[in-house]
Amino acid sequence: MLKQSQMLIPTLREVPADAEIASHKLLLRAGMARQLASGIYTYLPLAIRTLHKIQAIVREEMNRAGAQELLMPAMQPAELWHQTGRWDVYGPELVRLQDRHERPFALGPTHEEVITSLVRDEINSYKKLPINLYQIQTKFRDEVRPRFGLIRCREFIMKDAYSFDTTQEGLDRNFQAMYDAYTRIFTRVGLNFRAVEADAGAIGGKGTYEFMALCEIGEDTIAYSEEGDFAANLEKAEVVYTPSAKPEGEVPAAQKVHTPDVRTIEQLTQALNVEAKKIIKSLIYRVDDQLVMVLVRGDHELNEVKLKNLYDATHVGMASEAELRELTGAPAGFVGPVGLDAKKVEIIADQFVQDVHDGIVGANETDYHLIHVAPGRDFAVSRFADLRNITEGDKCPRTGGAIKFARGVEVGHVFKLGTKYSQAMGATFLDENGRSQPMIMGCYGIGVSRTIAAVIEQNNDDDGIIWPVAVAPFHVHVIPVNVKVEEQRQASEQITEQLQRAGIEVLFDDRPERAGVKFKDADLIGLPLRITVSDKAAQEGTVEVRVRKNGENHVVKLDELVPTVKALLASIDHTGQELFGE
Amino acid sequence: MLKQSQMLIPTLREVPADAEIASHKLLLRAGMARQLASGIYTYLPLAIRTLHKIQAIVREEMNRAGAQELLMPAMQPAELWHQTGRWDVYGPELVRLQDRHERPFALGPTHEEVITSLVRDEINSYKKLPINLYQIQTKFRDEVRPRFGLIRCREFIMKDAYSFDTTQEGLDRNFQAMYDAYTRIFTRVGLNFRAVEADAGAIGGKGTYEFMALCEIGEDTIAYSEEGDFAANLEKAEVVYTPSAKPEGEVPAAQKVHTPDVRTIEQLTQALNVEAKKIIKSLIYRVDDQLVMVLVRGDHELNEVKLKNLYDATHVGMASEAELRELTGAPAGFVGPVGLDAKKVEIIADQFVQDVHDGIVGANETDYHLIHVAPGRDFAVSRFADLRNITEGDKCPRTGGAIKFARGVEVGHVFKLGTKYSQAMGATFLDENGRSQPMIMGCYGIGVSRTIAAVIEQNNDDDGIIWPVAVAPFHVHVIPVNVKVEEQRQASEQITEQLQRAGIEVLFDDRPERAGVKFKDADLIGLPLRITVSDKAAQEGTVEVRVRKNGENHVVKLDELVPTVKALLASIDHTGQELFGE
Repeated sequence: MLKQSQMLIPTLREVPADAEIASHKLLLRAGMARQLASGIYTYLPLAIRTLHKIQAIVREEMNRAGAQELLMPAMQPAELWHQTGRWDVYGPELVRLQDRHERPFALGPTHEEVITSLVRDEINSYKKLPINLYQIQTKFRDEVRPRFGLIRCREFIMKDAYSFDTTQEGLDRNFQAMYDAYTRIFTRVGLNFRAVEADAGAIGGKGTYEFMALCEIGEDTIAYSEEGDFAANLEKAEVVYTPSAKPEGEVPAAQKVHTPDVRTIEQLTQALNVEAKKIIKSLIYRVDDQLVMVLVRGDHELNEVKLKNLYDATHVGMASEAELRELTGAPAGFVGPVGLDAKKVEIIADQFVQDVHDGIVGANETDYHLIHVAPGRDFAVSRFADLRNITEGDKCPRTGGAIKFARGVEVGHVFKLGTKYSQAMGATFLDENGRSQPMIMGCYGIGVSRTIAAVIEQNNDDDGIIWPVAVAPFHVHVIPVNVKVEEQRQASEQITEQLQRAGIEVLFDDRPERAGVKFKDADLIGLPLRITVSDKAAQEGTVEVRVRKNGENHVVKLDELVPTVKALLASIDHTGQELFGE
Repeated sequence: MLKQSQMLIPTLREVPADAEIASHKLLLRAGMARQLASGIYTYLPLAIRTLHKIQAIVREEMNRAGAQELLMPAMQPAELWHQTGRWDVYGPELVRLQDRHERPFALGPTHEEVITSLVRDEINSYKKLPINLYQIQTKFRDEVRPRFGLIRCREFIMKDAYSFDTTQEGLDRNFQAMYDAYTRIFTRVGLNFRAVEADAGAIGGKGTYEFMALCEIGEDTIAYSEEGDFAANLEKAEVVYTPSAKPEGEVPAAQKVHTPDVRTIEQLTQALNVEAKKIIKSLIYRVDDQLVMVLVRGDHELNEVKLKNLYDATHVGMASEAELRELTGAPAGFVGPVGLDAKKVEIIADQFVQDVHDGIVGANETDYHLIHVAPGRDFAVSRFADLRNITEGDKCPRTGGAIKFARGVEVGHVFKLGTKYSQAMGATFLDENGRSQPMIMGCYGIGVSRTIAAVIEQNNDDDGIIWPVAVAPFHVHVIPVNVKVEEQRQASEQITEQLQRAGIEVLFDDRPERAGVKFKDADLIGLPLRITVSDKAAQEGTVEVRVRKNGENHVVKLDELVPTVKALLASIDHTGQELFGE
């Protein structure tokens, strides 16, 4: 019997000063975690119970998907990181140290190098592939700004998996198996999440999804549609263009207007009293070795990732002021496409620029803009493309429904690595024809400790946490109104034992505190059900069962308690799974 | 269904060159572990299954003993280690690093500092004590000589627990509860072990036991008695003295003999043709600030720990050659107690020196010894004490039976810390009278990864591992003689599924290898039972069940397979526990 008086559950009445978000506050206040150093936490007994439940779900679903568990070291020799070049590239986030012989090591922030060297050394034939290997392990990343409690830590618990295939189709299958497993995992732990298409960078293709728990405090913006399952990162979300009707009548000839010190879109809309969508922003970029002018409507934002992908470039950045002047003769704020030499600069435009028929651009002259500019007539565009960020109200590329924005915390990531690591480290296999080929890899991560925080972030109210049944530290909190009344204590203990025999996990609050204090702590800790044991237990044979999630109170006869508790837990459990085997 | 063809079980035919001991060889050969760097290992899927079983046993018994699980960070701020002074004392075994802000950290080799600071901050009243907190976690120790595979690693898995009490009696209770839990844990995992009294150093009392798995390769020598449960480290084992009868007749007067270059006991026994037990070794020690001559019989070894404890000293070391010469006028090898000035040096003796009636000692003159020396007559001894190492054949201090020696590997340690850490770090509580007192601590460790190695070390033969049922990666290995014969494959799959439905864990060797190769691998991996599926499965409805432990073969009818497998497993399981709930 787990008695609260004997357990380390140091609840706090006051809100800790440095905790900004709900999960951080509640992890501290409910006595689940304590910070040891910036971004480094101790998990107290309540948190351990939830952690184990999440880990069990992760293991079950990973095993079901055919992955095999192993455990790799945290200490990784620098030699491995030199083989992939990451020792030099990774920067100060990589925790580095030297052993007593001054040999350099990294504390693993991730394990591509270790797993690739292992598989390289142990597997060399297509007969032993595919394989998918995972671990649940402590990771180290020296974040520049650890914050938000368990959301962004320097030492944290991660599930990382790595698949090795002989063909792209094999990778696709493993990738899909992981995508499906992640969907089951995050559903089972009780998260409201979206699998979000993210930019795959140099690898390309539909090779990467981030699993985002939807929370206000998320650092990433997600574009999604309520119809269908479309969801994408801002940087990735495709914008669909349908041409709007061209207005009647001729566009007057372009005309230069004096706009002293008017440099921004906002200033321009005021100075000329026009809507932003009539203005064409002209941005000059250096794309690898080439200068490019990118045109975007004044009410839109350029998406640099799309620009980079359009050119398949490795580097994209704004041109310097000197380059700007040399090319256009004007400073930033007054440049435009009219009269530019197409040999010196390619002019490309977002597809929505096609909707601007009578527009405004910079005049390539300090303090002047051109009005009544018509694309095609006054300047040529070499190509139109999807180059802007999606906005709320845009059409969903799948369903045509309206796009909405949400913020999210990344709790999982599935990623097609391809042959980046296998080629760098020589992880090859002999195919059916005896030819040596690099293995084709995928990697798949889940932030296990972060998931605890995300679940709390989504499941709380002003009084505390509201645990989903599947990952609650206990199912039921048994609280005698006054534990010093012998009948109440006895009844509470009997109830605890009775529930435990039925496979229900019970925390018994045997502390000699006032009822109000105990109820406040119970709400804070947030177990799914609270059973209040008063004198009525002995006198009338009843107790009160309160559902944390909806505040419902049920007076329940003692001889119906076990089935009632089971039924109530089943009614609020989101997973619909069998809770208690018998 | 876990198919061996798809699992990462890279068995090796050859014995790895650098592996010296059985468990190290077998962990590598059975495809359970791979070294990443010196003393740093990856646990492969088979090892993970055993690791989880051992961890589950540890958790069950720790929880049963009333301990609570938490999880502390590996990265520990140096400030904490300065508070106890261990930052300066610990030496190069402590892995140290700096974060991006150049703040110093240690990677925890143990967690006294972290747990003491946590409990100090969260508990301040006797009402919340006692408490016992444990974790299963990865530890780091930069061993000067990592070796023996998982026995002596630089990164390893440990269970460490810390108890906090208000009284010495409370500590005694927690200590006993841990002693009992450890006894259950090591019994359940299948180890042949002894709880060995070890030296408690400055803390004293019966405050420390090491749980030693008995293995030839152990680095420590254990003295034990087969009658009763006495077992102790060499450094600790008490030697019982019963005086032997004094021989008849006078001892002749002491006489100086020329013994050129005869310095050691062995040389002396040859030069004078006497037994070693007639010689009295005279050793001069510096005990803190004092010079002490310690006399030990020539066939015995001085125990420096006992010497240190006798004087309650903090430092004990051999006197320098210069000190020796100044005191005696002779070099090492020729010093003795006769004629020494008791004001300059205290002369003490091991109690067995009382049995030497006509002995030989150094003459305090180069190249000379004295014979016919009688203690008491020729020199005075200020006190006799137990100062020597126990030897095989000595009397057990409990039962009087004969002492035997064994070698052991330390897999657990229970230790009374007292107030060392709580005083250094200010971990105090208010007692019933409102007075502030330091908490009284104990610490309790189990080498979890080392336990895997110890189990293998004790359970193997020339062919491979012989897993105890309780911690075997799987219970049963199902092997078709020829998997390409469709009937054999089908029968094997059906058998696997049938056993799994009954809760039995099965590894199905579906590899298209020759039967001999598969049998060799099966012996190497060492699952408790092997089921060989031949054509007889289809033709006669029988398979062959082989017991790895004793080599017994049983022809079993398919419709009796499940109960037979269960009965065979139960018959070889040492724990006598229910194996399969239904």
